[in-house]
Amino acid sequence: MEILKQRILADGVVKEGNILKVDSFLNHQIDISLLNEIGREFHRLFRSEDITKIITIEASGIAIASIAAQYFHVPVVFAKKSASKNIDGEVYSSMIRSYTHGNDYTAILEKKFLGPNDRVLILDDFLATGKAQLGLLDIARQAGADVAGIGIVIEKGFQGGGDHLRDAGYNLKSLAIIDRMEDGKVVFREDSF
Amino acid sequence: MEILKQRILADGVVKEGNILKVDSFLNHQIDISLLNEIGREFHRLFRSEDITKIITIEASGIAIASIAAQYFHVPVVFAKKSASKNIDGEVYSSMIRSYTHGNDYTAILEKKFLGPNDRVLILDDFLATGKAQLGLLDIARQAGADVAGIGIVIEKGFQGGGDHLRDAGYNLKSLAIIDRMEDGKVVFREDSF
Repeated sequence: MEILKQRILADGVVKEGNILKVDSFLNHQIDISLLNEIGREFHRLFRSEDITKIITIEASGIAIASIAAQYFHVPVVFAKKSASKNIDGEVYSSMIRSYTHGNDYTAILEKKFLGPNDRVLILDDFLATGKAQLGLLDIARQAGADVAGIGIVIEKGFQGGGDHLRDAGYNLKSLAIIDRMEDGKVVFREDSF
Repeated sequence: MEILKQRILADGVVKEGNILKVDSFLNHQIDISLLNEIGREFHRLFRSEDITKIITIEASGIAIASIAAQYFHVPVVFAKKSASKNIDGEVYSSMIRSYTHGNDYTAILEKKFLGPNDRVLILDDFLATGKAQLGLLDIARQAGADVAGIGIVIEKGFQGGGDHLRDAGYNLKSLAIIDRMEDGKVVFREDSF
């Protein structure tokens, strides 16, 4: 997605440890106009999939999922990262190792919001090793829901999680795939779609 | 806001401890059509305030702020609840006592995303004792930003935080104010606007 790549080149900041900061427009401050373009693009890519629900994980996936959901006319359900006394009843849960924070957490999603009649689209801002996506796939599997697709804004291709998911047969589309970051510069993989 | 109140009456669940669960449409599963109506209503209430940024706090405020921001054509900045290695540089921070979780956390927001030229609208899903809002007001004060308004989807009026903020002079508008919850029923305060 060209305007996204241009925005990453213009405003993304490469930090030590292969960290790409896009917090001026994607996951701390959010450019809602850009998110609308991203939502439209996800809809173009997955419109034929008969999506019934968009699922994501808090926190930075929520804005993307919510804006995109307007084009699909379906609800969003976001998995929560820790138990809260506002969560009760039966939940699906999956342990996730966080690359960003370097610790484990449990993603939980109430059973009543996902079931075997759902065809879900998983949306998130980043895909690196794929741990968060595997957690959401695990939750979808527990629910008996079909996973119609996975849409990612920025895939760090060099961390392998995306190719692993493609090899496993998932319909994964990333709007920008980064092949490498060298000398503070981002190098994108050629589009596959 | 009538359709919101009707939805709370239809789908909200009153739990022990004065907890109102609206997780089927507002803060776990999200009805994006309803959020669009909420966003339009916030715009109607605050359109004349020359808002430059909408601020909120993760996680459940993000969907509301993002959808509403489309009507204001301004960016969203969400305060984060804990330090992450993706946050660097100078941050504003404020300690907040969570009613929901019964513990303290620190809200942080990078200084570069809020400054003295900003007129902010604070949006959130719930206001109870007002601790989260006081944290965001503290961050706005540190930034030297004007607070043009505070928009809340559901105010638990009986917990006093909203009236405290109004008494302090803030332009607070809540789309539904709950005066009390008795025998599992929600009783709304008469609209003040």
